[in-house]
Amino acid sequence: MEIKVVSNVLRTNDLLAEENSALFEKEGILAINVMGSPGAGKTSLLLCTIEALKNDLRIGVIEGDIATTYDAELIRETGVEVVQINTDGACHLDAHMIKRALVYFNLSALDLLLIENVGNLVCPASFGLGEAIKVVVSSVPEGDDKPKKYPAIFKAADCALLNKIDLLEALEFNPARFREDLLKIKEGLEIFELSCRSNEGLSFWIDWLKKQRCAQVLG
Amino acid sequence: MEIKVVSNVLRTNDLLAEENSALFEKEGILAINVMGSPGAGKTSLLLCTIEALKNDLRIGVIEGDIATTYDAELIRETGVEVVQINTDGACHLDAHMIKRALVYFNLSALDLLLIENVGNLVCPASFGLGEAIKVVVSSVPEGDDKPKKYPAIFKAADCALLNKIDLLEALEFNPARFREDLLKIKEGLEIFELSCRSNEGLSFWIDWLKKQRCAQVLG
Repeated sequence: MEIKVVSNVLRTNDLLAEENSALFEKEGILAINVMGSPGAGKTSLLLCTIEALKNDLRIGVIEGDIATTYDAELIRETGVEVVQINTDGACHLDAHMIKRALVYFNLSALDLLLIENVGNLVCPASFGLGEAIKVVVSSVPEGDDKPKKYPAIFKAADCALLNKIDLLEALEFNPARFREDLLKIKEGLEIFELSCRSNEGLSFWIDWLKKQRCAQVLG
Repeated sequence: MEIKVVSNVLRTNDLLAEENSALFEKEGILAINVMGSPGAGKTSLLLCTIEALKNDLRIGVIEGDIATTYDAELIRETGVEVVQINTDGACHLDAHMIKRALVYFNLSALDLLLIENVGNLVCPASFGLGEAIKVVVSSVPEGDDKPKKYPAIFKAADCALLNKIDLLEALEFNPARFREDLLKIKEGLEIFELSCRSNEGLSFWIDWLKKQRCAQVLG
């Protein structure tokens, strides 16, 4: 008698991620998975990005948190549609959670879907959500050694943001070392340095995002 | 035919953690599991703590990282014994990794074992290592909402440290809110505010640690 084995959870996740991806493509939605440590500034990035793009694009947000709806409440104040996922202890979002959240959106009325993952620089790297673009938000107070110490998530990323550069003068952080280490981990990685508090550098990220959207629309 | 099920990995971890704990007790070692987000200042805390205690206690360190030996190299400069665990992608230390690391120490020549977990505010909460004390290092730049957003790890902790208080003036952070939220999650939790950069507040943590060591020795 054959013993049934439930294989690789990651494979199951991949299949669901492919379904999400096909749905995004069909509906013409650019989906972005925003990952990073707790407190790196993921929600602030979403708020800045929404502010910069809400007149041009129809934006939806999925907020992933272990507990609370704090971040979703902040997002709601911008007027965009937001759905909160509470993972209830789980350390990352997965494709199935996204699939369940998507039923709350009117997908045909969306251009851009920003997904904020659980604050975690490790686990989210392994679970695709069907997104077109993975962004890792790093921040100056975390230190410039994070790419080398947590390489997998940066390797998986399409774009790395260094947030809180308004603190560069107050803290020891070598942006050149940070950038160099990132490019060793992933050649050609897009890297933007910015501050969601002062808005310094923000426009480069916004322009890049617009370019990704154009590329998607033009096919 | 009965299908064999490999049950609950957490239970397996618990059994190994109990073995580690018994060994620590037999050898009279106070083991501390230091957890926190990437960049919260766990290594800096270890360096400050070693500096403050190395004349009184014989200290060993286990450094947990996904990759690199950077932190272990910093610790080694203090002259204490250090063993690096590279988890090779795994998001937390577990009791089996600790068991394997312990063979590299002369345990009868140790009073205090400081274990730095992988930077992660979620997963390490679920995996006991056999430690006597769990410490969570939080830091001002992460924001004062972290206890509410990542409650499990604070609930599991015996002591919470708020690091980088030298940045309180530069950043928006409400220490009273932070403390209040922590005590709602875990009544009676020990909380110390400090800066490993300026050494402000450090002595309260050191005194508390000495007290824990005395309590252990007095049984």
